Amino acid sequence: MKRTVRHLADGREIIYFDHNADHPRRAEDTRDLPPVAASSEIRRDPLTGEWVAMAAHRQTRTYKPPADLCPLCPTRPGKPSEIPEPDYDVVVFENRFPSFSQNVSGEPSTVDGLGLVPTAPGRGRCEVVCFTSDHDGAFARLSPEQVRLVVDAWADRTTALAQTPGVEQIFPFENRGEEIGVTLSHPHGQIYGYPFVTPKTERMLAVAREHGGSVLGDVLAAEQKSGARVIVTGEHWTAYVPPAARWPVHVQVVPHRQVPDIPSLTAAERDDFARVYLDVLRRCDALYDRPLPYIAGWHQAPVRRDRELSWLHLELFSVLRAKDKLKYLAGSESGMAVWINDATPEQIADRLRTAG
Amino acid sequence: MKRTVRHLADGREIIYFDHNADHPRRAEDTRDLPPVAASSEIRRDPLTGEWVAMAAHRQTRTYKPPADLCPLCPTRPGKPSEIPEPDYDVVVFENRFPSFSQNVSGEPSTVDGLGLVPTAPGRGRCEVVCFTSDHDGAFARLSPEQVRLVVDAWADRTTALAQTPGVEQIFPFENRGEEIGVTLSHPHGQIYGYPFVTPKTERMLAVAREHGGSVLGDVLAAEQKSGARVIVTGEHWTAYVPPAARWPVHVQVVPHRQVPDIPSLTAAERDDFARVYLDVLRRCDALYDRPLPYIAGWHQAPVRRDRELSWLHLELFSVLRAKDKLKYLAGSESGMAVWINDATPEQIADRLRTAG
Repeated sequence: MKRTVRHLADGREIIYFDHNADHPRRAEDTRDLPPVAASSEIRRDPLTGEWVAMAAHRQTRTYKPPADLCPLCPTRPGKPSEIPEPDYDVVVFENRFPSFSQNVSGEPSTVDGLGLVPTAPGRGRCEVVCFTSDHDGAFARLSPEQVRLVVDAWADRTTALAQTPGVEQIFPFENRGEEIGVTLSHPHGQIYGYPFVTPKTERMLAVAREHGGSVLGDVLAAEQKSGARVIVTGEHWTAYVPPAARWPVHVQVVPHRQVPDIPSLTAAERDDFARVYLDVLRRCDALYDRPLPYIAGWHQAPVRRDRELSWLHLELFSVLRAKDKLKYLAGSESGMAVWINDATPEQIADRLRTAG
Repeated sequence: MKRTVRHLADGREIIYFDHNADHPRRAEDTRDLPPVAASSEIRRDPLTGEWVAMAAHRQTRTYKPPADLCPLCPTRPGKPSEIPEPDYDVVVFENRFPSFSQNVSGEPSTVDGLGLVPTAPGRGRCEVVCFTSDHDGAFARLSPEQVRLVVDAWADRTTALAQTPGVEQIFPFENRGEEIGVTLSHPHGQIYGYPFVTPKTERMLAVAREHGGSVLGDVLAAEQKSGARVIVTGEHWTAYVPPAARWPVHVQVVPHRQVPDIPSLTAAERDDFARVYLDVLRRCDALYDRPLPYIAGWHQAPVRRDRELSWLHLELFSVLRAKDKLKYLAGSESGMAVWINDATPEQIADRLRTAG
């Protein structure tokens, strides 16, 4: 794998990940871009103790451009994009509309100086990951070799963001489908370098702390023993529907060895992940005989603490409860954090096994 | 207020709340209804410790019926609905497709008998509240007297559900708008009697426990002092945008006196709530010059514990971040529980004040 770091016209970093060393990656970004404006702030909700981010500049972000103006395609003559090169394998660049950024000013304080609501600049980093230069492709249709390159890019970015000022947790994820608000259809994901440990992770860490270690190893062993919810078994990974699944489609892809993050995975584990995950994704698209809108993201250990309580895994879920019906997060889910699933985990697992 | 309890053809309870005693409410439900089938189960997520509900029978629930077949309108000749009477003021009945029910069997156990994932029947109760018999009405256009009747109905149901076997917390809420999946446009809300204390409430209680009491009183005092986020001030209630608002429209309506639940409110407090809340709702609909899709729900104390740590309040929020743009709960929100707001609380408050 060859890695080349360049910069866009407004100073943002762009990193090319190539299968081989033949590409010099010297193309210049010829666009006349205004400087990136970031106004990110974080505040801690006094009632729940959870951090919330505010990024008012994001109101004006790019919204469903026509395909021939896709900013994630390689640059073509007369059509400059975010990627100056005429082709690429996998590419990562800093988001032009970041939720968190290094370009934020200010000091930690409290709202109105009253001490009740801590506030701080949203100092972190947000990146975009293009999985392929093929505008009409999909993660599910990547080759195992291409997935491996994506995993290597995730690992590289996790290591780099862990050394970026302010970043406390790194979350590589993919939002796919208009149903969950994706405005760019080109196959891509994002990486958030959060300036705090996320509320979801804090909850898992609290349970692990009480348990005396990550619970995920016990869950994995129970799922392997039962088999009732297992979808795909690889040499180094198992994919199963979690026993208290919240979503109409919900899968956890778990390595058999406890590792804190993606950089800790061996080459064999990365290759096996590609096989297992592609199998899961193909079943997802077969489930309703249409591309499944989904969210998939990596649970990694915090950068600086509780790493021994963490067990890397990928979680994938979908809002689609039938071919043309969405699961909405309404009063119970959004108001009280109680998920109501229309299907049992065993039913979901049966459907995904049959879809294969 | 007159209260009349009747039963529907399948045995479900229906309760009429009337402004005056003139209505005998003796109409019979003439429909030939199959018995209610409920298969609700709850399981505790081993990774987060949170309860999740599974209600597989809800896949077949009513989905956007034509207006002349609205099940929430009064019964008209040849068109029987869920409400046998030819008219009503406010009416509450048991949901035909409940997420939680008294008609569930089974005993507490663990998934696969392995001890890792506690499971139990979803023994609770789900009710529907019709706010008005006017199909084309809206909560925002109710009279203060009609809102007062709704509050009295919520109070009655909170008291009744607190005595219903299995119920640990009672959540009256309204989902409004197709954008959040509402399939019946007739103005109505729901009441969930949960068989556990909800994850959202558990988080607030944990913060209150550490603080030595509910934090909401301190927040209310700080908001009143600052004024930067206050929308409406009443004699007994204040409505403000929370200082760490998660949503593009987000309001908390808080009583000035610490009470655990709706039944504890005095008559004067109930009347003042109607005035303050109607003011908030009218601003919400004026905000984008269209009916605002929203979720509004009551945070009430658990039935059996931590009541002294609780402070009743209503929370209203919307997914609409512009007239025609939705805020989606994608990777960061749904995956990591990190909300990214496109607006600051102060901007949201300015907009709602101007919209008035």
